[in-house]
Amino acid sequence: MPGSWGNYVKITIFGESHGPAVGVTVDGLPAGFAPDMDAVRAHMARRAPGNSPLSTPRKEADEFEVLSGLYQGKLTGTPLTAIIRNLGQRSADYSGMPDLLRPGHADYTGHVRYLGHEDPRGGGHFSGRITAALTFAGALALQWLSSQGVEIAAKIIGIGPLSGDGLTEEMQDAILAAKADGDSVGGRIECRAAGLPAGLGAPFFDSVESVMAHMLFSIPAVKGVEFGDGFAISALRGSVSNDQMVTENGIIRHLTNHAGGILGGITNGEPLIVRVAIKPPASIARSQHTVSLKRGVDAVLAVEGRHDPCIAPRALPVVESAVALALSELWKERLTWTN
Amino acid sequence: MPGSWGNYVKITIFGESHGPAVGVTVDGLPAGFAPDMDAVRAHMARRAPGNSPLSTPRKEADEFEVLSGLYQGKLTGTPLTAIIRNLGQRSADYSGMPDLLRPGHADYTGHVRYLGHEDPRGGGHFSGRITAALTFAGALALQWLSSQGVEIAAKIIGIGPLSGDGLTEEMQDAILAAKADGDSVGGRIECRAAGLPAGLGAPFFDSVESVMAHMLFSIPAVKGVEFGDGFAISALRGSVSNDQMVTENGIIRHLTNHAGGILGGITNGEPLIVRVAIKPPASIARSQHTVSLKRGVDAVLAVEGRHDPCIAPRALPVVESAVALALSELWKERLTWTN
Amino acid sequence: MPGSWGNYVKITIFGESHGPAVGVTVDGLPAGFAPDMDAVRAHMARRAPGNSPLSTPRKEADEFEVLSGLYQGKLTGTPLTAIIRNLGQRSADYSGMPDLLRPGHADYTGHVRYLGHEDPRGGGHFSGRITAALTFAGALALQWLSSQGVEIAAKIIGIGPLSGDGLTEEMQDAILAAKADGDSVGGRIECRAAGLPAGLGAPFFDSVESVMAHMLFSIPAVKGVEFGDGFAISALRGSVSNDQMVTENGIIRHLTNHAGGILGGITNGEPLIVRVAIKPPASIARSQHTVSLKRGVDAVLAVEGRHDPCIAPRALPVVESAVALALSELWKERLTWTN
Amino acid sequence: MPGSWGNYVKITIFGESHGPAVGVTVDGLPAGFAPDMDAVRAHMARRAPGNSPLSTPRKEADEFEVLSGLYQGKLTGTPLTAIIRNLGQRSADYSGMPDLLRPGHADYTGHVRYLGHEDPRGGGHFSGRITAALTFAGALALQWLSSQGVEIAAKIIGIGPLSGDGLTEEMQDAILAAKADGDSVGGRIECRAAGLPAGLGAPFFDSVESVMAHMLFSIPAVKGVEFGDGFAISALRGSVSNDQMVTENGIIRHLTNHAGGILGGITNGEPLIVRVAIKPPASIARSQHTVSLKRGVDAVLAVEGRHDPCIAPRALPVVESAVALALSELWKERLTWTN
Repeated sequence: MPGSWGNYVKITIFGESHGPAVGVTVDGLPAGFAPDMDAVRAHMARRAPGNSPLSTPRKEADEFEVLSGLYQGKLTGTPLTAIIRNLGQRSADYSGMPDLLRPGHADYTGHVRYLGHEDPRGGGHFSGRITAALTFAGALALQWLSSQGVEIAAKIIGIGPLSGDGLTEEMQDAILAAKADGDSVGGRIECRAAGLPAGLGAPFFDSVESVMAHMLFSIPAVKGVEFGDGFAISALRGSVSNDQMVTENGIIRHLTNHAGGILGGITNGEPLIVRVAIKPPASIARSQHTVSLKRGVDAVLAVEGRHDPCIAPRALPVVESAVALALSELWKERLTWTN
Repeated sequence: MPGSWGNYVKITIFGESHGPAVGVTVDGLPAGFAPDMDAVRAHMARRAPGNSPLSTPRKEADEFEVLSGLYQGKLTGTPLTAIIRNLGQRSADYSGMPDLLRPGHADYTGHVRYLGHEDPRGGGHFSGRITAALTFAGALALQWLSSQGVEIAAKIIGIGPLSGDGLTEEMQDAILAAKADGDSVGGRIECRAAGLPAGLGAPFFDSVESVMAHMLFSIPAVKGVEFGDGFAISALRGSVSNDQMVTENGIIRHLTNHAGGILGGITNGEPLIVRVAIKPPASIARSQHTVSLKRGVDAVLAVEGRHDPCIAPRALPVVESAVALALSELWKERLTWTN
Repeated sequence: MPGSWGNYVKITIFGESHGPAVGVTVDGLPAGFAPDMDAVRAHMARRAPGNSPLSTPRKEADEFEVLSGLYQGKLTGTPLTAIIRNLGQRSADYSGMPDLLRPGHADYTGHVRYLGHEDPRGGGHFSGRITAALTFAGALALQWLSSQGVEIAAKIIGIGPLSGDGLTEEMQDAILAAKADGDSVGGRIECRAAGLPAGLGAPFFDSVESVMAHMLFSIPAVKGVEFGDGFAISALRGSVSNDQMVTENGIIRHLTNHAGGILGGITNGEPLIVRVAIKPPASIARSQHTVSLKRGVDAVLAVEGRHDPCIAPRALPVVESAVALALSELWKERLTWTN
Repeated sequence: MPGSWGNYVKITIFGESHGPAVGVTVDGLPAGFAPDMDAVRAHMARRAPGNSPLSTPRKEADEFEVLSGLYQGKLTGTPLTAIIRNLGQRSADYSGMPDLLRPGHADYTGHVRYLGHEDPRGGGHFSGRITAALTFAGALALQWLSSQGVEIAAKIIGIGPLSGDGLTEEMQDAILAAKADGDSVGGRIECRAAGLPAGLGAPFFDSVESVMAHMLFSIPAVKGVEFGDGFAISALRGSVSNDQMVTENGIIRHLTNHAGGILGGITNGEPLIVRVAIKPPASIARSQHTVSLKRGVDAVLAVEGRHDPCIAPRALPVVESAVALALSELWKERLTWTN
């Protein structure tokens, strides 16, 4: 189902941008784990808008309330649901939306799929705001994996045509330049997971790549996912791309990591490396050709309102969350085999 | 589960390279559909080895037997199972395998996951041969989608460092050169699906990208998947990457297709475009550092036998099959909404 | 996962008896359907305690709040979540509970499964209160099925040793007598669904019986489920139990309905008939042997508090809800076949 | 999907009575387990027809071939598929079947569901023969559970109106009397699982009762399932039906077992007890009213051929298999919690 993901750590998300609340149910994280709620808040704050000149000035509190599954600070093992109330929507900004389809948004496709019954306010269920719920769930997964020795971190590796290691000043300038132009710009993110044991994942449909890409492509704006050398590996020869092996204190290690820590769909003990492509935000102040759904005629639209000129910086904790949820799923699947 | 995929069109694959047979169960294609079995064979023949100097000279008949789900030439609607007997394995070629781990293969990771009980002959269940079963299932899905007006076709767009439209002579030379060097080389494939209606897919976990990437990353050797402009879209500005809209004879069309036919996880009526990166085959005749699993010591291995210098040409029908299976799944999911 | 059910109409439940709220996410009911919220409230009121001398005098408001999936009174098609805040728990009544295991309750088994981290207050996630969430979801399904011509109604057919058609005065006296004795009593419920088309369900794992029994056995206190003549059919001969067929105005009808409207796991167009056995409530004022979990010694316990002497009357809307959810699932599954 | 069941131990069945083969894929039983194939054959022989005057004289060899997932006598951990070829069908016995609907069979409902494309020979995919595949899978699960200390055994507890412990001479006479009358008779089976740890299962949708009833109702002919005292518990008072607890050498035990070893959907360490009602076989030699599908007119049918007068004796290993598969699923689910 659209709103659910996972068999071992199941996530169910719900909510609309301008409805009462967005939220998530997490089912499967271990009973007895005591999450640090301040750390959860800090993780979510990295995604929240309004914290930087690089993002929309729109403020969203992102205060969550845990409704179930937590008792005396520990997970009970039964479904944990958290909700985040929607506050301070400026609906006026979106007043023209049900009529003029915003290019690059899901206005048209959502309208077709839901037969005209979708909530059109602020993108409804298609809003990036839903990723706040995903980020909450991911924060729990990140902490739990960390307690198992797995550390996950994402970083910017590109903004528009610029590439580099981290959000450089030049990249920040590129974002601000796009903003000044009433435009937006895309970016690229790399995420690494260190400390993984060999043996997570399976061949074919439960490959690490399949499970993780499924989750990563759930993030609105992601249009590409690659592991290890990814697309670049296709330009290599096998004598280069094969990660040769040696023993090191009795443990099997690899001399290189072109495979990004995954062979045959299964982790090999090396750091997992995944990269995602983030498209430019679709809401821009520049005039674009579009269609009036009500009148069935061509029109021109400049999307007013406070929008992100680049979503990549705010997407970092979302990508980390997606990676952590996928690894939690694979981790729990692994437990059914080793006992 | 590793061996199963799909909720509306479910695929279950099984088999080992050197066991009695590989096979697949397809559950969910429409009762009454009459597949053209000659067309199925022709589709599978494109994947089968031994048909070109660009592939391994190893011959595999790939003759399938349908065991169930077919009556008087039509699908009954109940599970359809087909098996492909394994013939003519030269096990001798692999005699040293359980000991020396082949770099770039799943020998080590499969050994860890299955606790040392995996079938090591010819890669066992990790063998690319299992994709013959997937290709059979995909052939049925392709035909059914074609009967609904959807045409799917994949083509080579890159071999090693070379890019272009189709398998050019230069690319073929690059493959033969790698072969002559006892080496291998990667490639890139683009697949397009034309004739899709708007409205397939859903936001988040059932996005077209999520469902299709899950299936595509199940193909051994795929290390990257991107839709529309993919990674390149992250270098653009929104004013360029947004696909602006106009009406055309009362129908909404897009002036460009940077999104690859998908917005908000849902098809928009434009051709779907997806690209995959294929890594170089891991089996090469050149010496590589590796480890003896039995003795726990470092070793050097040159993989003997008849191997593919490049898997991309044979992967074309596999990619088409994966795309067709994903679209069949989304198509049937859509039916639960429009009635 | 424990908290989720369904592939076409997915239900996710959450909550603990004494936590902030219980709730449910419903994913898959048709976009555009406009539920009558007063009818939902009336359906839920039949389950709510405190409305009859036959039930616990404990008052629970059962006021729900819809957080998502509803826009301008219609389902949007995206996940609908509703929560019911927990109010007015008299935690003092349960103060001794984490120590003395209540016989007939899940105190011990929940403690083992969740490794001692369960919320013990009022049964936690095992509380019958969670069925309020199921009843909300079922109310939506009942209304939608009714809009399709399917009418579902459950009735009491037995209380303790008494059998009959409906909750007779004699049965009510039996419940009050048990209550006066500080004891409780079981009951039996029959539910019928009329107006179903032939063709819902499938052989084997998606049989109507499998899908519906799965849901019905999710209701705490249900210990038996039977369809049509059920256990009694096993005492018959085939010449009696076979439902013979005739044509009636060109439509195939059955002369009897021993099968309860289901053959080969598929509806045959006759009314669906299912019966469930409800065990006596476990909380009774009479002294019982039990064990102190903390001290590991034998003990005697009389469960104080305001408890139901018989759960069957309040279970009627829960059974109707379970039947409606199962039929909604099968109805949507059917749509993937007939198009 | 109809043909698949399970999340942790997944079963996929396929085949038609008169097609090339029936079969099953089992995905999830532990790598390294070495099944005793003679014991598998012995288990399957108990289901096979032709071995007793109480069953049909129709002989079916039920010889299976394992196609995958087994290497050097041990499970590899990857999907295990076994097929059973169909031999010696006397299709002539069924020659009139596509026309005259057999009362009590799925001829009509299968025809509606599969839109007229079902394989009508011998019941097609609805045939009881498919349970041979389920019995094979169950044989593996039974052996694995036995290696974990769990012993499962089913017995007849009723034939027609007769009740008792085991297949008494009187019951055998009742079956032979029905046979002599060209008729058939139903029966009741009880299955017990001893040696189960406390803690398998979960509240609500993954309750032991839900998971096991789902599987048991997949068996054609099962019309009722009850746990512990089942329907009889609804006639009791709580002071009787509650299983009181004591400590015994530091272990918590129950003084009675009215709950059949399950509380709150979770095993409590006592023997699991489940009973199923088996309807009389539908194929009888006596004349019955039915309908000609081709001509749309009423007709009379006496089903020729060699049929079982009572299916209960042959159903014993099928019920044991279903119970074992359900417990294997719950067992593996449990592993994700205790690690």
